[in-house]
Amino acid sequence: MGETTDIKTVVADLLHRGDSKQLDAVLEPLHPADIADLFEYLENVDKVRLLKRLGNERAAEVLTAVDEHSGQALLELLTDDEVISLLEEMPSDDAVDLISSLPPEKSRQIGALLSSAERARLGGLLAFEEDTAGGIMEVEKAAVRATATIRDAIELVRKLADDIENLQNVFVVDHAGMLIGSIPVLDLLLHEPLEKVTDVMQERPISVPVTMDQEAVASLFGKYDVFSLPVVDAAGRLVGRITVDDIIDVMEEEASEDIARIAGTDEEEFGEKSALRISRARMPWLVVAMVGEIVNAMNMSRYEVSIQTMVTLAFFVPLVIGIAGTTGMQAAVVVVREIAVGQGSAGRVWKRVLREFEVTLINGLVLGTILFGIVTAWRHEPGLGLFLWSTLLAVTVIAAFLGATVPIALHRLRIDPAISMGPFISVTSDIVGLMVYMTFANYYLSLIR
Amino acid sequence: MGETTDIKTVVADLLHRGDSKQLDAVLEPLHPADIADLFEYLENVDKVRLLKRLGNERAAEVLTAVDEHSGQALLELLTDDEVISLLEEMPSDDAVDLISSLPPEKSRQIGALLSSAERARLGGLLAFEEDTAGGIMEVEKAAVRATATIRDAIELVRKLADDIENLQNVFVVDHAGMLIGSIPVLDLLLHEPLEKVTDVMQERPISVPVTMDQEAVASLFGKYDVFSLPVVDAAGRLVGRITVDDIIDVMEEEASEDIARIAGTDEEEFGEKSALRISRARMPWLVVAMVGEIVNAMNMSRYEVSIQTMVTLAFFVPLVIGIAGTTGMQAAVVVVREIAVGQGSAGRVWKRVLREFEVTLINGLVLGTILFGIVTAWRHEPGLGLFLWSTLLAVTVIAAFLGATVPIALHRLRIDPAISMGPFISVTSDIVGLMVYMTFANYYLSLIR
Repeated sequence: MGETTDIKTVVADLLHRGDSKQLDAVLEPLHPADIADLFEYLENVDKVRLLKRLGNERAAEVLTAVDEHSGQALLELLTDDEVISLLEEMPSDDAVDLISSLPPEKSRQIGALLSSAERARLGGLLAFEEDTAGGIMEVEKAAVRATATIRDAIELVRKLADDIENLQNVFVVDHAGMLIGSIPVLDLLLHEPLEKVTDVMQERPISVPVTMDQEAVASLFGKYDVFSLPVVDAAGRLVGRITVDDIIDVMEEEASEDIARIAGTDEEEFGEKSALRISRARMPWLVVAMVGEIVNAMNMSRYEVSIQTMVTLAFFVPLVIGIAGTTGMQAAVVVVREIAVGQGSAGRVWKRVLREFEVTLINGLVLGTILFGIVTAWRHEPGLGLFLWSTLLAVTVIAAFLGATVPIALHRLRIDPAISMGPFISVTSDIVGLMVYMTFANYYLSLIR
Repeated sequence: MGETTDIKTVVADLLHRGDSKQLDAVLEPLHPADIADLFEYLENVDKVRLLKRLGNERAAEVLTAVDEHSGQALLELLTDDEVISLLEEMPSDDAVDLISSLPPEKSRQIGALLSSAERARLGGLLAFEEDTAGGIMEVEKAAVRATATIRDAIELVRKLADDIENLQNVFVVDHAGMLIGSIPVLDLLLHEPLEKVTDVMQERPISVPVTMDQEAVASLFGKYDVFSLPVVDAAGRLVGRITVDDIIDVMEEEASEDIARIAGTDEEEFGEKSALRISRARMPWLVVAMVGEIVNAMNMSRYEVSIQTMVTLAFFVPLVIGIAGTTGMQAAVVVVREIAVGQGSAGRVWKRVLREFEVTLINGLVLGTILFGIVTAWRHEPGLGLFLWSTLLAVTVIAAFLGATVPIALHRLRIDPAISMGPFISVTSDIVGLMVYMTFANYYLSLIR
């Protein structure tokens, strides 16, 4: 970290002094990802100078390594021609991501200026949904025909090694381009040059349909511990491949998405700098929370007389709905997470709902008893303690039920259950909690009056 | 999915009938991870039969693919000798994980029965903290001396290919075992057999110290887009390697941990079946929530007279603390996530706190204005609306400030800021929110009286 800070000062200084020779010497041993870190500290004019000094190939690698927000900002500083020559050096998936991240007009403008070769390379990819296998795959791949030998495969690898990063497998296709096998690059070292690829390949390898959701693709990588998977179209033709480094990005994205939803915001917010845009990401959830709480206020107002009779009742409203909200969230988040990581087969999930009941009964009993003790000691009214004890138990069980079943129901309806977490579940639990509380409170008052 | 269900019935049936030949034919084409899925549906006696039928090597692969809870349960069904012969077939990192997951007595028992060769292989690993590079690395690796040629490296790969999974690099070490270089397996195809490894290797490759936290290791993989990294001891000697498939597990684990913390539970809960243990994971957070809300009840009781005077005041308590809690959570979760994914360099984080102020001012103004409108229309008291408008603004700004600064402070104190999310932040926001609300309410009452 300290080192980066030093290098950043050195680089900024060399850029200002225009000492290209010294600059090249400093940059040469750096990994593109480390050069990408420098950009954070540079002024715009220096950023452009640095990119140009790096040359197209290196600059493209660096651009691939900066985060999306910064990459977008960098491209804005370049001319269209400069952008296009950088895109040509990038793997197809990164190039397409970058084009997609640009503002629509800019993106169209760049698209129109692409060479026909580039359009052929990238055009197909731009058509896929961003969060599907097609959206994250790259079209660069190594494929040989079924008639090829190990030597042919090795020669292909040698030819492609400079242009394709992270080549893990040579795929085998038939005359129609259908994927029929896969050979790990390492295996090319284990066989005789004249052996036929069909004799050593893994037949019917695991492959990914181009339309598969990226989260499902990530699960496949996790399940089978593979580093690269071929992507096929509806007919089974090999169209690209996905490497595990992209899966790491997908996992980070999906975790951010889930976490954002629980917190009541949008994953777009992470790394976002505009206060207005952040505000917009959070506003819907805050409005949900406020509408819910206005419903609560109206519900409470229906019990105005009861509260007037016994103001003490109002003191415990935050407690009951707070515990209800926490309980609902605990149940919801666990169920959603288990669905997300694929531990959510139907049978298991219903078992989970049942288990929520058990868990909440235990917790409700324990918490209720503590509460009974504290309230009785504090207000000297065992009746009030008993009322709170039973209310807490009822409210938490209901909240846990809501928290566990709503995500399952959404999942069945093929709606991403993560949407239900955060404010939605806690507000629903709040409302139901308050209704139960007030009903119980009224009954309690009728008993002691 | 449907297919798995069918195979499961077929396998269970063949196990019952003892038709080994047919069983082998069904199992043969299955990936170990798919066989692992079958275990979920089998009875204990069938699980043991199936494991034995697979033979040690295959059974070990399957055992590596089942989740921790199931793996543990499976081992309990086997004799110590059977467990030991399975461990011998497993990569060192998986073997150690499995031993560590056993109950302490069982784990000690197995440890004592290991052969001296196995103890030499696994003993060192057992000493490392579970969530460090040492805890997730495997000791199996391919390393050649600096004097070796490409041919030597290829021969080593051929020798090890059967025993080491996911061999990505051949590492180069000096006479003292210090890591001095790395050669991707693919590069072995690109060079002449008689070239020296030192002429083609990548010098001073990125490496991981054995004590590095697994989350930091995962960041390195994400940053440099690598598939395997060497692990070195304090002196720089090569001691093992980490492959990206293990990093995927780490990321899933860390995401689960963060999500669990936000929800107010423990990541141990995911996949857990015992209601008692789940209850224990959630209880601390519920107690935190309850203690906080009891503080709130006591605070409200200090304003008993004011509430008695104007019961309406009580109606908006859930609203104000609900919005405060949501706002605090939004700020906390975003800051924690940005720290976690490494967007949290010091300068940026303080900018973030400043931005929280802006965002919350915007949101507070918008929500306050909506609330003012609704309340004035409903209760016909513009004064009440104005009081709520100003309270909401003050409370949300304070909650956002707490939400953003508490995680940063914890991070500075080297405490995992994720611990502050969930109930902790929302309860703190609740308490502060209620205090502000009641103070403002008292002032408002003094004005209208």
